[in-house]
Amino acid sequence: MDGSGTQPRAAMIVIGDEVLSGRTRDANMWHLAKRLTEIGISLREVRVIADDRDAIVDAVRTLSGAHDHVFTSGGIGPTHDDITADAVAAAFGAPIGIRDDARAILEAYYEPGALNDARLRMARIPEGAELILNPVSQAPGFTLRNVHVMAGVPAIFEAMLDSLRPRLAGGPPMLSHALRAPLPEGEISGPLGEIAAAHPGVSFGSYPFFRGGLGTTLVARSTDRAALEAGVAAVRAMCLALGAAEVQETPPA
Amino acid sequence: MDGSGTQPRAAMIVIGDEVLSGRTRDANMWHLAKRLTEIGISLREVRVIADDRDAIVDAVRTLSGAHDHVFTSGGIGPTHDDITADAVAAAFGAPIGIRDDARAILEAYYEPGALNDARLRMARIPEGAELILNPVSQAPGFTLRNVHVMAGVPAIFEAMLDSLRPRLAGGPPMLSHALRAPLPEGEISGPLGEIAAAHPGVSFGSYPFFRGGLGTTLVARSTDRAALEAGVAAVRAMCLALGAAEVQETPPA
Repeated sequence: MDGSGTQPRAAMIVIGDEVLSGRTRDANMWHLAKRLTEIGISLREVRVIADDRDAIVDAVRTLSGAHDHVFTSGGIGPTHDDITADAVAAAFGAPIGIRDDARAILEAYYEPGALNDARLRMARIPEGAELILNPVSQAPGFTLRNVHVMAGVPAIFEAMLDSLRPRLAGGPPMLSHALRAPLPEGEISGPLGEIAAAHPGVSFGSYPFFRGGLGTTLVARSTDRAALEAGVAAVRAMCLALGAAEVQETPPA
Repeated sequence: MDGSGTQPRAAMIVIGDEVLSGRTRDANMWHLAKRLTEIGISLREVRVIADDRDAIVDAVRTLSGAHDHVFTSGGIGPTHDDITADAVAAAFGAPIGIRDDARAILEAYYEPGALNDARLRMARIPEGAELILNPVSQAPGFTLRNVHVMAGVPAIFEAMLDSLRPRLAGGPPMLSHALRAPLPEGEISGPLGEIAAAHPGVSFGSYPFFRGGLGTTLVARSTDRAALEAGVAAVRAMCLALGAAEVQETPPA
């Protein structure tokens, strides 16, 4: 059980050789994960793939069929390896070309004469897609069916996600309650497993820490507040029974 | 073309609800990506999945069949949601149980009486697997066929990767040459596409920057030094022809 109840399910595709080579540390996955949790959408899987048309087509088809939303990051700039828009269109058999509304946005942004062929590629939008506005550098992303195509530059990705936000309906928000106890994970884990089995609507995570003394942070998560509180009470009682002198708690907001 | 020539190909599976929920920012993917690039192994895909047995089995089967190496991170501790070892064994139909060599490592580490049932779970190793030693907290990882199963805690993941390193044969190292030019990406991208088409053994990436003035970092990558130098010469000439006053270069080590 993951405690996510009736939340919509999402996947992400990070497209970028620079992430796979270690040149760049991806930031968009972490940002999206936090934002979707706030919205009440459950992120179930992320794939990081190369700037490769077949890999993009395959990932889009597989993940869009299995989730309510798919978010992509990267590959929509003006260069030869920016192939995401065409690959997403191909995944759904949608025609793609320079669209007037996207071209108008770029024409308004660039100085006269600066909108060259490479930049015009950023106005290639599949038929039937809805634009995702980009207040940072104007070149838009788009939503085709349940796939939201956004930029890889973190500041632009974040701004596009803000633009998209009103179109994303979340389920009940995920509530999270953390308990930090000065107990080694290996002493907690037996009884925690029993608690998890007895509270199927709550997910329990356990994360050892080593700084400031050895201990474990236990995190209970659920969309159901009453179920969460019952699970937390059981975890708290367990920590005290195991001899924890102090349990620091961070309840849901 | 990705410029990786005859390098072995690898994939990674990050197993962890805490990454998908945004509670934790993954660090292991970035670390592995950098280390594999140094070794001469091409990381082709990363999947981040939940602590879910079916999801792990499916990802292990798919990726181990398509790559020379698969590296996993997470889910090998003592708690109820640490199911990676059993799932990897199941993916290959391998029996799994507490193995004497792994148990001996834990017995030597814990105080008498502290090796409880939960901690003993960390000695569950599939038949036919080779241990990956863990100098940080002793509980070992393992290699089963071409799948290397390691911990999620970054300090332990990194130490395990160091332990595993002598068993990883790399191909020719990837050479990378960066050129930083004060030119907007949209002016470079047309000619860069022509250069990329003319140098099929080299991959060219282009990354706009906005700090310290607007510009673009161009990165050429190849395992073939002569091909790389020819590609870099073409990029350098293009930048100067487009009027770049200065091109800052970072050649391969």
